[in-house]
Amino acid sequence: MSHEGTPDEQAIRDAKIRERLDLIDRKIIVMSGKGGVGKTTVTVNLANALVDAGKTVGILDTDLHGPNVAKMLGCESGALQSADGNNFLPVKVRDGLYVVSLSFALNSSSDPVIWRGPMKIAVIKQFLGDVEWGHLDYLLIDSPPGTGDEQLTAMQAIPEMTGSIIVTTPQDVAVLDARKSVNFSRKMQVACLGVIENMSGLICPDCGKEIPIFGKGGGKKMCDEMDVPYLGSVPLEMHLREFEDAGVSTLEKTPDSASTKALQAIALFLDTRLQISTSFNDFKDTSSCSPTACASCSSNCSSRNN
Amino acid sequence: MSHEGTPDEQAIRDAKIRERLDLIDRKIIVMSGKGGVGKTTVTVNLANALVDAGKTVGILDTDLHGPNVAKMLGCESGALQSADGNNFLPVKVRDGLYVVSLSFALNSSSDPVIWRGPMKIAVIKQFLGDVEWGHLDYLLIDSPPGTGDEQLTAMQAIPEMTGSIIVTTPQDVAVLDARKSVNFSRKMQVACLGVIENMSGLICPDCGKEIPIFGKGGGKKMCDEMDVPYLGSVPLEMHLREFEDAGVSTLEKTPDSASTKALQAIALFLDTRLQISTSFNDFKDTSSCSPTACASCSSNCSSRNN
Repeated sequence: MSHEGTPDEQAIRDAKIRERLDLIDRKIIVMSGKGGVGKTTVTVNLANALVDAGKTVGILDTDLHGPNVAKMLGCESGALQSADGNNFLPVKVRDGLYVVSLSFALNSSSDPVIWRGPMKIAVIKQFLGDVEWGHLDYLLIDSPPGTGDEQLTAMQAIPEMTGSIIVTTPQDVAVLDARKSVNFSRKMQVACLGVIENMSGLICPDCGKEIPIFGKGGGKKMCDEMDVPYLGSVPLEMHLREFEDAGVSTLEKTPDSASTKALQAIALFLDTRLQISTSFNDFKDTSSCSPTACASCSSNCSSRNN
Repeated sequence: MSHEGTPDEQAIRDAKIRERLDLIDRKIIVMSGKGGVGKTTVTVNLANALVDAGKTVGILDTDLHGPNVAKMLGCESGALQSADGNNFLPVKVRDGLYVVSLSFALNSSSDPVIWRGPMKIAVIKQFLGDVEWGHLDYLLIDSPPGTGDEQLTAMQAIPEMTGSIIVTTPQDVAVLDARKSVNFSRKMQVACLGVIENMSGLICPDCGKEIPIFGKGGGKKMCDEMDVPYLGSVPLEMHLREFEDAGVSTLEKTPDSASTKALQAIALFLDTRLQISTSFNDFKDTSSCSPTACASCSSNCSSRNN
């Protein structure tokens, strides 16, 4: 109870969270069942693509044990500034893109965050209530894998969550765990906006042939079986990892690559779809919005926006 | 407190855990900072390699949100049997290999386990106290990524933990998180037995050239900097994923592959080293045991055991 506070304190904090988040048009949680499927890669690239399209976007990194959003965006040296000692300003990455991550508060990037659940819940609620995002078109919430404290807290504490995006690789064990995330989203009554199949084939830089290193099509198949929208597939390309490690935008550096086109297409599709659909249930039930044409062809994913 | 029980109940449970684990010679936790680096792949293959070498091995799957050990071992249909209604027998995979996982207790593989920390702590302690492993040479504890409830509970509840194995990919963001795991292990005063660099290069099945898809050498570099043993690198091979998804042993199916040889070599090295070293501190401090010859060459990893 010490982390949660008294009922009065909880009510005040919940009201503060609501006040902050009322200024944000769309709140989307990016989840996966299995780790290492590329949630953070997807989150930072969707954010960059949305900013390129003129939107104002915040990223809240709720992966407290492995907060990598800042490193991938090249803003690790940022710090959470406070104007009044009580509230924080997010770190600005570029015009229209803002980030809050626990990594800004750690003394060293090698320090482990050895926290049990209640401490994690308290910190996520603090991020939700004490950060002065101002108006945002999108808040993307990057989460650790699984369906535990971090995801539960975000789902329960954020009023009117727009929906969830589930990231998976085509591999059976990843798809198995992604099913859990879809069902989790449903149980929490948060619309599943769709599934992204990441690491969907690798193009050999030497011979140019496609290597289905983690298989292919597992995400699309799951979407058909579970009746959730399939948002598209993103191929694994060498430069993605290299630019991530260097904290450089892969969209900017490789505008013509298959992964850039796929990520941009998914961002624009989501944005367009959310503008059309005012009801989350409408979005959830409209299986026709699923760009099934991309299932077998990652290179022309963007065609669905033409 | 309801999950923890009264102080008397806690003392009884702790005594029961100690009694069970006293029958197990070596207890090793397999950890990573980042998800998806192949902890479970490493765990099941090290286990199989140790069993092939005549050892009796148990695997405790503490990844409650994404328990994939049973699927990778092809024993998902197993069930935890109880002789007396209070204690459980592990599921036998083959002679000498036993598994306990929450997946055996789930109604459906798509069901999300929506649990906060205290519930997870209670289940892991139940696994430790109520499973009749009998005598084992090794208990390998597979864990989810990070340094939260699951890892803390295992570290604190298991008396005389032999040590930790940290799995990483060569990618910067994975190595960054692996550093946290090494420091976590040190803070918990559990010897770090070493680091394994997984997904260390991919051989193109078409042209045979090596593709450093997640980079190369990041794990070795970190070991040098942090003064922890480097256990070797395991290349990413197509068949690894395929056999995992099918629940088949890759060691048995591809005895001559580079990944099989690397995993077997690491298992034998660990086993030999732990037989020589009776003191964990001795192991921790003996940097000469680190098979540095393997840093640039995954294909002849096994040479260090000759």
